[in-house]
Amino acid sequence: MKAFARVIFQYYLLFVLVFLQNVSTSPHKIPRLSPYNKEELSSVSAEDAKDLKTYYYRQTVDHFNLAPQSYATFNQKYVVNSKHWAGPNSNSPIFAYFGAEAPLDVDFSAIGFLSQNAPRFKSLSLYIEHRFYGESIPFGTMEDAMKNETTRGYFSSAQAIADYAEIVLHVKNKFSAHNSPVIVVGGSYGGMLASWFRLKYPHIAVGALASSAPILYFDNITPPSAYYSLVAKDFKEVSHKCYETIRKSWSEIDRIASKNGGLSTLSRRFKTCSSLKSREELKNYLDGMYTSAAQYNAPPEYPVTVVCKGIDEAPRGSDVIGRIFAGVASRRGKRSCYNMTASRTQTSVGWRWQTCSELVIPIGIANDTMFEADPYDLAEYIKGCKQLYGLSPRPHWITTYYGGHDIKLVLKRFGSNIIFSNGLRDPYSTGGVLEDLSESILAVTTRNGSHCLDILVAKDSDPEWLVMQRKTEVKIIEGWLATYYADLKS
Amino acid sequence: MKAFARVIFQYYLLFVLVFLQNVSTSPHKIPRLSPYNKEELSSVSAEDAKDLKTYYYRQTVDHFNLAPQSYATFNQKYVVNSKHWAGPNSNSPIFAYFGAEAPLDVDFSAIGFLSQNAPRFKSLSLYIEHRFYGESIPFGTMEDAMKNETTRGYFSSAQAIADYAEIVLHVKNKFSAHNSPVIVVGGSYGGMLASWFRLKYPHIAVGALASSAPILYFDNITPPSAYYSLVAKDFKEVSHKCYETIRKSWSEIDRIASKNGGLSTLSRRFKTCSSLKSREELKNYLDGMYTSAAQYNAPPEYPVTVVCKGIDEAPRGSDVIGRIFAGVASRRGKRSCYNMTASRTQTSVGWRWQTCSELVIPIGIANDTMFEADPYDLAEYIKGCKQLYGLSPRPHWITTYYGGHDIKLVLKRFGSNIIFSNGLRDPYSTGGVLEDLSESILAVTTRNGSHCLDILVAKDSDPEWLVMQRKTEVKIIEGWLATYYADLKS
Repeated sequence: MKAFARVIFQYYLLFVLVFLQNVSTSPHKIPRLSPYNKEELSSVSAEDAKDLKTYYYRQTVDHFNLAPQSYATFNQKYVVNSKHWAGPNSNSPIFAYFGAEAPLDVDFSAIGFLSQNAPRFKSLSLYIEHRFYGESIPFGTMEDAMKNETTRGYFSSAQAIADYAEIVLHVKNKFSAHNSPVIVVGGSYGGMLASWFRLKYPHIAVGALASSAPILYFDNITPPSAYYSLVAKDFKEVSHKCYETIRKSWSEIDRIASKNGGLSTLSRRFKTCSSLKSREELKNYLDGMYTSAAQYNAPPEYPVTVVCKGIDEAPRGSDVIGRIFAGVASRRGKRSCYNMTASRTQTSVGWRWQTCSELVIPIGIANDTMFEADPYDLAEYIKGCKQLYGLSPRPHWITTYYGGHDIKLVLKRFGSNIIFSNGLRDPYSTGGVLEDLSESILAVTTRNGSHCLDILVAKDSDPEWLVMQRKTEVKIIEGWLATYYADLKS
Repeated sequence: MKAFARVIFQYYLLFVLVFLQNVSTSPHKIPRLSPYNKEELSSVSAEDAKDLKTYYYRQTVDHFNLAPQSYATFNQKYVVNSKHWAGPNSNSPIFAYFGAEAPLDVDFSAIGFLSQNAPRFKSLSLYIEHRFYGESIPFGTMEDAMKNETTRGYFSSAQAIADYAEIVLHVKNKFSAHNSPVIVVGGSYGGMLASWFRLKYPHIAVGALASSAPILYFDNITPPSAYYSLVAKDFKEVSHKCYETIRKSWSEIDRIASKNGGLSTLSRRFKTCSSLKSREELKNYLDGMYTSAAQYNAPPEYPVTVVCKGIDEAPRGSDVIGRIFAGVASRRGKRSCYNMTASRTQTSVGWRWQTCSELVIPIGIANDTMFEADPYDLAEYIKGCKQLYGLSPRPHWITTYYGGHDIKLVLKRFGSNIIFSNGLRDPYSTGGVLEDLSESILAVTTRNGSHCLDILVAKDSDPEWLVMQRKTEVKIIEGWLATYYADLKS
């Protein structure tokens, strides 16, 4: 490369990085759809490392195209635990966990549903990593794969579930489990994949547990304001005072930031590890803290309660900023400083692409919450994605391929064996299936639950309603399996 | 291009053409899966040309990939007849016919099911052309598109049904038919597409009529010998003598061909328009005549009967060759000469690609028929396709994506509203669904029927069993619609 060209290229890269940074912290961000918050992994591990075996499947890059380049392959990671499995030709079930927008590395310790039910079902546990995350990246590193507009084109949900189809068939074959029924399990985005998989590949999975899967948060089936309105409601229910403090805080941040040296003041008052580059950096940090507290509002701590406790019980005489900071300290713990710089991870990079290509989840903020109003604007969203990737997203593709509109009318008499589980305090539950669609496409909800609790590791401290939710799900799945075995015999 | 390179390129093209010719006439050819035989179109036209309106939809080249080149578009043809439609917002149904491996140009005159039932259902009739056929070819002409290994990669069934999904949604929108139930109809390969569409896109089609769709002729679900064995059985049932004459003819052709000037003798005796280039040319012509007579063995003529009448009633003293020729003359009519050179059409070019990429239909010939034995050899088949296209076919992809194995176990409790219709004399019925899979996934068969008769134009001369078959199908569809409207109201 000539020197000049190199400079231009580096400048371009810098521009892209800065731009990505801005976009990743824009108020239009779509909260991640991971089943759990990695920063708060349970100390209890679901799977014992010594029982796990890791494999790599030679996966086809493009299942739907038949040109030579589509025949390229990459190594896709999957992990098996056969400790409790009844063995080959036993017809014992396989539970397959579908990875979401993150490396698989800790899923098997965080997701308890498979391992904790394996003794009961004598089942094989299978965890599969999603393409373009973790070790399952075609075309080199994530950076390599994502900066090339051709290679990142293979990063789509339809390709991902076709990957899962091939691996499940491969594993059934490898373990001589031809007649073993397969139950697919996923949480959040992985839950969408699980339910879509049961609908698209009924010949491979006999049923699906789709935990906290907002499959209706597309194409305006769910109102764009629903997510943030539920976050706000969660806070209001815990403490009206807390809600009001947060509501007032945004203009207070603006007031200080617009003063001379205002950002320094805010940096000092929030003990940021590095100086704030903009007021948006702070606002996005707080926004993320509130939404993630609501989404992952798990017992026994209940993060929304933790945040509000900090805010409400701030030292007497605290001003609004002091109270909000106390909320941060309560949630994050006492620290010498707080890192508010958005970090670049595989998940942030991958999820930005997925939501800017096909997973167009319209999330905006109405003007009656504790957040600053920010109505959803599809045209603006498209513009942003175009600037990032040079391509318009396909906002109608998800509903074209998977459906979603009039779901009750469609699935009342089509399909079977799906559990849509939701915790009704989870803001993403607003895009979930909250009522039974048929006799075997069922909604299992908990009033006080949050995101994906049912599939996480069960703990002694779990409340009764969560224990019951899991029991209900196990009972339903046992029913599917009993029917399957009866059909198999006849 | 430099002169030398041009010569090499021309030589290469010549080689490819010669090779294609050989393959297209190899005994391992897969009989076309068109709903009707274009050479024998009924004189009655289903649709009145003046009622038809042709449109072109700007279709996405690649639905499953998100790279810039996938966003390329092409014009896809569809044709609408709204003469009998009850109009916008009437909730009257749409019947959508899915084109198969041929131009759409005469489908609307040959396919009667839509037009002839339109007055009864007050339905809109929609005919959609399959990508890469007729006028719906991305990237220029068929020749252009097929000689480029990248562009022909977009030629797959999953892309085709995604096209249909987009066009059906587009038409519903265009005609303000949001709540209109859609029934998809297809014959042969188009019937496979219709049944797969109902399974993959239940949110777009409320039901499917899949006529003569051998969805089980993949991955050895159906034994490879089934097709030819049924052709032979059809002939034997019509005339044992005819069957025996055909059985003996192959070695007789070999005996003459191996003599000095034998090919000239055969050319003269069969009155070929141009001299036979090989004995295979003749054998393939005869093979094609027998299989197509059996496949399209329609009333009132019944081509198998016509062929056998010629063979059996050949002038007294005719030898085997004379009798076979009399069969040809009886079937093709008296002519000054018979063209036995395989012709190159869009269908032959496209179907060869489709069967050499994903539609790997294993057809061989057992040693107990009237044909020369020719067991199916997948490895050899793969080798042939590799030589043609430089790529291995994907013989397991169809069953991975659409299923097929253990179909009763899978669909007994999944899905609804599909009619699999078959005429049991059609050799492709051996790969069809011949028994009910559930209460609404139904098999409608006729003992004496052949390929796709139910969806072709109804004629006064049609036998009672064919009239009844169509009535049964209409009744079933009326039931689906009644249920749909009841669900819509509630």
